[in-house]
Amino acid sequence: MITVLRLGHRFERDKRISTHICLTARAFGADEVVFDVRDERIEESVKRITNEWGGNFKVNFTENYNDFIKNFDGIKVHLTMYGLQVNDIIREISDKVNESKNMLIIVGGQKVESDVYFITDYNVAVGNQPHSEVAALAVFMDKFFNGKGIERKFNGKIEVVPKARGKDVVRKGKDD
Amino acid sequence: MITVLRLGHRFERDKRISTHICLTARAFGADEVVFDVRDERIEESVKRITNEWGGNFKVNFTENYNDFIKNFDGIKVHLTMYGLQVNDIIREISDKVNESKNMLIIVGGQKVESDVYFITDYNVAVGNQPHSEVAALAVFMDKFFNGKGIERKFNGKIEVVPKARGKDVVRKGKDD
Repeated sequence: MITVLRLGHRFERDKRISTHICLTARAFGADEVVFDVRDERIEESVKRITNEWGGNFKVNFTENYNDFIKNFDGIKVHLTMYGLQVNDIIREISDKVNESKNMLIIVGGQKVESDVYFITDYNVAVGNQPHSEVAALAVFMDKFFNGKGIERKFNGKIEVVPKARGKDVVRKGKDD
Repeated sequence: MITVLRLGHRFERDKRISTHICLTARAFGADEVVFDVRDERIEESVKRITNEWGGNFKVNFTENYNDFIKNFDGIKVHLTMYGLQVNDIIREISDKVNESKNMLIIVGGQKVESDVYFITDYNVAVGNQPHSEVAALAVFMDKFFNGKGIERKFNGKIEVVPKARGKDVVRKGKDD
């Protein structure tokens, strides 16, 4: 089970970025995203996508991210541009997660409290340059699954048939 | 030379997503992002980052994306969830780009005109699920550079020293 903890969501500014984080987490193989700020607009839009495109992905909420991290039963990975380079550490993390079953991936916004660096097992950089928590999450998860995470099937009502030109979408089953 | 063409930027809604696209393009090894909508706020914030963190990354603008694509001298890749799976096609694209030197990567917003599918060399899906153009760009570029693109050096005034806990930033050279 893979949980993504999204810290520092700002209601006014981050709706789209946080939605991208949720959809990226889902597409690359996470089971849920947990926020420390409740934003029902995001929960709704993710629910709409999951309902159509399949899978059991959930958006959840915690009042206290610090306790949430400390109490998480599994390997805790904080994505930060200041951490160790992902290519140097990803296989060690995979091995550890294989043993302990669960992984928590923490993605911050611009300001993550410094205590987060010290209550996680790994601080991992997807490049040591400033870019995007969406990009960092996607590339970290892609590497974690050896590049194959994006090939998983979701058994949704809608499915894309990969195509060299144009769009081919199959609609399966019944609406509910 | 790698150019990213960002289509469908909406001034009101996409400032942060488009900024993330620019910073991701830069961090993963592109030389410029070209927009078909001018937004100086993005140009400014990218310039600020490049000035501090190094490299020659540029934000540019085209009046007519259709002509821009048609006249581009190199391999043209459109990232879309409806395309062929990236893992199946990335080595063929690498080989082609090695021959022709330049690559154009086109990332759309939610609505990309259907003609784009037919004026590019490749339509490539980073997973056939809805997620994020930031995630798609990052993972495509990471795979294009065999996972090593994020390790490049930028020789900026600021440089991060990868660290297991906390932050270690070296400030080099003089301010201008």
